[in-house]
Amino acid sequence: METYPITIGKITRHVPVVETLPGVHIPLVEIMGDVELVQAAAEGLVKHLPPETDALLTLETSPIVLAHAMSAICGKPYVVVRRKRRPYMQDPIIQEVESLTLGVSETLWLDSRMAEKLLGQNVALVFDVVSSGGTMRALEKVAQRAGANVVARLAAFHQGNSKLPVTFLSAIPILQTA
Amino acid sequence: METYPITIGKITRHVPVVETLPGVHIPLVEIMGDVELVQAAAEGLVKHLPPETDALLTLETSPIVLAHAMSAICGKPYVVVRRKRRPYMQDPIIQEVESLTLGVSETLWLDSRMAEKLLGQNVALVFDVVSSGGTMRALEKVAQRAGANVVARLAAFHQGNSKLPVTFLSAIPILQTA
Repeated sequence: METYPITIGKITRHVPVVETLPGVHIPLVEIMGDVELVQAAAEGLVKHLPPETDALLTLETSPIVLAHAMSAICGKPYVVVRRKRRPYMQDPIIQEVESLTLGVSETLWLDSRMAEKLLGQNVALVFDVVSSGGTMRALEKVAQRAGANVVARLAAFHQGNSKLPVTFLSAIPILQTA
Repeated sequence: METYPITIGKITRHVPVVETLPGVHIPLVEIMGDVELVQAAAEGLVKHLPPETDALLTLETSPIVLAHAMSAICGKPYVVVRRKRRPYMQDPIIQEVESLTLGVSETLWLDSRMAEKLLGQNVALVFDVVSSGGTMRALEKVAQRAGANVVARLAAFHQGNSKLPVTFLSAIPILQTA
C-alpha cells in the first residue's frame, strides 16, 4: 500500500494514499482514533485562537474530537453542527453545502437550542481537513445565521492549492499521476 | 422548558425533556460540547474496563468524544464505526441495525482497514446512551465479524428498563404522562 507522511508538531503518520478520481490520489487523513495526533493538532491550533474568541464551532464527524481537545485546553465551549436531522431538533437552521468536488449536495443542521448559544458570540471554525472550502463556507453561513461573528477559520490540514483564508498547521498535496 | 437533572460523578446537568412519542418524554442527554461531563464519564468508565481489553469500539456520532477521552486516559486505541458509507472505504463490513424504537433501519459501516485492527482483539463497546440496545447489538455484530472478542459493554447512561448486560454510570428514566 502506498503511503504518504503527514506531520503535526512532533507527530508523523504514514497515511494511505487513495484514488478519489481517476488519476487523482490523495493522502487519506483520519484523526479519529489517534489521540496523539489530535492532541498535537489541538495544541497547535489553540495558539491561533484570537483572544476575543468566545466559542468553537465545528461539524460532524471527524473534526469533533479536535474541537473537543481544543476546548479542553482553552476552556472555551464548542458547538457541533450536524450533517443529518436529529429527531429532537426544534426549528433548526438548515444550510446547504455547495460542493463542487463531489457534485452532490449535503445539508447542515443546527438545533435552535444550540444556535441560541452562538447569538452574539465570536466563534472560531474548527476543521480537521479543508480542501475546496465549500463545507467551511457553509459552516460560516450557519454561524452568521445564528447571529455569531466568525473570528477565525482553523484547520489542522489544508489539502490542495485553494487560496482560502484558513489558518492551518500542515499542508498536504493532491497527487496527480501521468 | 421542562428539565431533568442527570449526574455523572460530581457533574450534574439539567437537560431538556423532549417528547419522542405522544405521552412519552425523555431527558435529552447530549455529551458533545460538554468537556467536563465527558471527562467525568470517561474517568468513571475506564475503571470498568477489564484488564484484558485491547481496544475500544464506538460509533458515530456522540459517543466518539467519550471513547476519545477514555483512550487518552487508559492508553488503549479506539475505532469508530460509521453510520454512513465514506468514499474511501474498501470492502467495508456492512451491518444493519434492527431498531424497534424508531421503526426505521439504519446501517453501520466499517472500512476493512479499520476492521483489520480489531482482528483477534479484546474490545470494549463504548456508548453514551443505551436504551433498547439494538444499536449496541449491531455494533457487537460488527466487532464479531471483524474477528474481535467483546469483553465489555459500557455506557455512560442507561435509559429505560431493559435488561441489557450493560455496565453504566447513571440511569435515566423514560417519563410517561397520564
